[in-house]
Amino acid sequence: MASAPTGARDLASLQAGDYHRRVDKNVNQKAKRASAIQPTRAEDYAEWYQQVVRAADLAENSAVRGCMVIKPWGYAIWENIQRVLDRMFKDTGHKNAYFPLFIPKSFLEKEAEHVEGFAKECAVVTHHRLIAGPDGGLIPDPKAELEEPLIVRPTSETIIGASFAQWVKSYRDLPLLINQWANVVRWELRTRLFLRTTEFLWQEGHTAHATEAEAREETLKMLDVYADFAENYLAIPVIRGPKTASERFPGAVDTYAIEALMQDRKALQAGTSHFLGQKFAAASGIRFLDATGTLNLAWTTSWGCSTRLVGGLIMTHSDDDGLVLPPRVAPAHVVIWPVFRGDDTRAAILEVIEKISKSLRSERFVDRQLEVEVDLRDTSGGDKQWEWIKKGVPVRIEVGPRDLTAGTALVTRRDKGAAGKESVPFAELATRIPALLQQIQDDLFARALAERDAHTRAIDDRASFDQFFTPKNADKPEAHGGFALSHWCGSPTCEANLKDALKVTIRCIPSYGIAGAQAAARISEPGRCIACGESSSGRVVFAKSY
Amino acid sequence: MASAPTGARDLASLQAGDYHRRVDKNVNQKAKRASAIQPTRAEDYAEWYQQVVRAADLAENSAVRGCMVIKPWGYAIWENIQRVLDRMFKDTGHKNAYFPLFIPKSFLEKEAEHVEGFAKECAVVTHHRLIAGPDGGLIPDPKAELEEPLIVRPTSETIIGASFAQWVKSYRDLPLLINQWANVVRWELRTRLFLRTTEFLWQEGHTAHATEAEAREETLKMLDVYADFAENYLAIPVIRGPKTASERFPGAVDTYAIEALMQDRKALQAGTSHFLGQKFAAASGIRFLDATGTLNLAWTTSWGCSTRLVGGLIMTHSDDDGLVLPPRVAPAHVVIWPVFRGDDTRAAILEVIEKISKSLRSERFVDRQLEVEVDLRDTSGGDKQWEWIKKGVPVRIEVGPRDLTAGTALVTRRDKGAAGKESVPFAELATRIPALLQQIQDDLFARALAERDAHTRAIDDRASFDQFFTPKNADKPEAHGGFALSHWCGSPTCEANLKDALKVTIRCIPSYGIAGAQAAARISEPGRCIACGESSSGRVVFAKSY
Repeated sequence: MASAPTGARDLASLQAGDYHRRVDKNVNQKAKRASAIQPTRAEDYAEWYQQVVRAADLAENSAVRGCMVIKPWGYAIWENIQRVLDRMFKDTGHKNAYFPLFIPKSFLEKEAEHVEGFAKECAVVTHHRLIAGPDGGLIPDPKAELEEPLIVRPTSETIIGASFAQWVKSYRDLPLLINQWANVVRWELRTRLFLRTTEFLWQEGHTAHATEAEAREETLKMLDVYADFAENYLAIPVIRGPKTASERFPGAVDTYAIEALMQDRKALQAGTSHFLGQKFAAASGIRFLDATGTLNLAWTTSWGCSTRLVGGLIMTHSDDDGLVLPPRVAPAHVVIWPVFRGDDTRAAILEVIEKISKSLRSERFVDRQLEVEVDLRDTSGGDKQWEWIKKGVPVRIEVGPRDLTAGTALVTRRDKGAAGKESVPFAELATRIPALLQQIQDDLFARALAERDAHTRAIDDRASFDQFFTPKNADKPEAHGGFALSHWCGSPTCEANLKDALKVTIRCIPSYGIAGAQAAARISEPGRCIACGESSSGRVVFAKSY
Repeated sequence: MASAPTGARDLASLQAGDYHRRVDKNVNQKAKRASAIQPTRAEDYAEWYQQVVRAADLAENSAVRGCMVIKPWGYAIWENIQRVLDRMFKDTGHKNAYFPLFIPKSFLEKEAEHVEGFAKECAVVTHHRLIAGPDGGLIPDPKAELEEPLIVRPTSETIIGASFAQWVKSYRDLPLLINQWANVVRWELRTRLFLRTTEFLWQEGHTAHATEAEAREETLKMLDVYADFAENYLAIPVIRGPKTASERFPGAVDTYAIEALMQDRKALQAGTSHFLGQKFAAASGIRFLDATGTLNLAWTTSWGCSTRLVGGLIMTHSDDDGLVLPPRVAPAHVVIWPVFRGDDTRAAILEVIEKISKSLRSERFVDRQLEVEVDLRDTSGGDKQWEWIKKGVPVRIEVGPRDLTAGTALVTRRDKGAAGKESVPFAELATRIPALLQQIQDDLFARALAERDAHTRAIDDRASFDQFFTPKNADKPEAHGGFALSHWCGSPTCEANLKDALKVTIRCIPSYGIAGAQAAARISEPGRCIACGESSSGRVVFAKSY
């Protein structure tokens, strides 16, 4: 366990009798105690993020440049994400399959824009054997050089396209709706745990259709699945819409994304869905005989989201005491521990905890049984409290001697501090905890939505636009403005100029999800481009981004 | 759909009225009809295997040498394997995590025996960028050569060991019980779908312990988990026990395996569990302070099983009509289709099928809801029948006009042919199908066990031993004898001589699982080595193997 803040360490040395009282006092005087995470968000957002990841024991950098180790607590969040998304994909008719890790160089070469986008930074396998070198160490065996280098997949359109070309013969074989859970590799220069790593875990959907309309419908359907998942499971409000040409997936006709606003007011692209037209079908030769016996190219789509979602979840909800987990994807919903004072009530407290955990585990929350951690380790209550706060478990339950007498347990919400503390009769826990978890889920979403709305602004003049994206305080260069809804004439030059000047990009041309009806109504209003002043038919979403 | 056998095609052109009668007649006269899979097992076992995989649409070779594409029906079997094993691992206290795909060359060099075993044939990443070459194609960028080559993991002891070395400080951090689901790459010369591929999917457990006894207990516990899973889910009887030194995992102190006998009487190693002693802990520096404050090396284990299990499942149960799936891992338990004759009963039949499928889906079988496929495609009943036979679905249900009148559905077991055909009243289906599935599961195991026992022999003289492993018929070189329980003096020379002479290896020194009490009792009986005639304290299991 990483060191607890000063306040917590003091608590750990107290008698258990003073425990609840002092914790309350401590939490009420929040301003006076040090936060569990140092530095705070306000002090240094980037470093705060790293420390939250570390304190929650989610992941760490590995010895391999840019590759992370996902630790059990972080991987369990990913497993929950996988479980829910996998069900959503199956409910929309998709089946899982698995395709090779390696892509022959010649496959990448088939689609001109695609190769431009992905050949730049990738892992290239050139040999299939190591032998002892002159100095005794291992070297790639010169006799085992591959005739054609293999690329470790950065994405699988080309290798999956080769299979689709064999699988699709007639319109009866369409639509072909496939998903793959896999690892991919993109050789990134600057990496950050979960947000951008050389290897990451993701899912990639790949579909082929007989008509353009059906492929476009699929592209938007899966964008909606991502938005549904982000909002209803991760409690992250998102804006959805198409990307501009410069931000498209290499080779796509249209790329759609869901975009979320982080607490430092930078945008995070949290999932993308691509309408690929017939470009990849042409490159891979995916052709089908239609009902009239004519041979046609299929229309394809692809869509993906990754372990980056875990980064988005951390940056949306966590606070200066560490991780805050939305209950629907939390590895544990509840943690319970005993507070002992002397030996006479010890057995009785343990018995009550055993009963409570058993009854809670028999309850369901949304799509799974309640996950309950019982922490019986021989460490102090203060250490336990801070460890589970930093790990973000939605609800903590403590049972001590006074609780035993009163027949109640002390229930604390992770997201509320002292205001979320309540004594609940033992018999009511099993019915009240699932409702409480849903309340926490709803409150987290509402809080994130309010935060986003507070930093979403319709801006029509360039001076305000520049000011919005210029840090107010040189000491805190990490407050990035937020979402600016501003007019754009459609010119890539204007887009590039704004990027050069302010590091601001167009996140998407918003379809929906913008804060409030008023703002939504103003999206399609005519106006003047924020960059050049030429006429514009509507606003787009500008932001700095991850 | 691959072409159905001649008999099936004839059926497809019949009037529906003749349908059930003709199928029965056809199945009863099995000897006279062509099998759905050509060649048969007896004709060419290796080719039969490939054709079963193809006809069931499980997997196919990819454009990347030695790498397979796992198609949806095959991947769904793997998902079931994953679901059950994952629960078993969690129930025994393990947590999932994820470690990098790439292993620095220097990590592999740390453990001398390990590098010897795994550096020979592996995928080596040497560059991190492609650029346009002189002829316009892509070449690895000479300026982007890695300082240290990276190996695509063939197994992860060394990279996970590096993390364990950081995670383990004191005895309080032990035991550390981790599992990873991942893809691994071993550059195989000769590959066969599922059984041996360059890339394959697997799980690898890695654990660290404070004492040798605890690590040895873990090694055997996970061997038992594998045996439990193989026998109770895959319905594959296995023998378990330690390997000889020559068959050990490179770097292990002891390797244990579960070994199954395929229908061609070759053994398949279906899962391994390794006691690694302190060798990998020393190589990676996994040290802990014990309760007395002394620094010690940890004791580690690793254990794995892979998509090879799907190959074992195919070869254990399938017949000359294709795949036979044990219900507990079948992607679908039941398939239902209508048999139409004219339009007047069409709506009524569809309504009944809707009701049946709904009521079946509300039932549970072991650890999940019943999975029911409803096949309403506009193809003939004969085509459907043969497609689902070849795909191995345990139970087929047909409803036609006569069934409608009788209030019964025709239920057919995949594993029994005509003998497994029965008319069941609609109202009884929901209660009888789960019981029938369990009966099928039990029967498949019993049949596989009987088959193995019939080809397991205690052999004490060399002439019989040679005869056992020599094909009786030069035209059918693929009948491989089976398991010979024979004496071995313990000498690696004798082991090597037998391998050279007969391609026979010691599969394991059996602990239990040998056919029948009588054979088990004879395992530890003294005798004379089958190779050299020197004294031996017990028998071992010899077989040819995959």
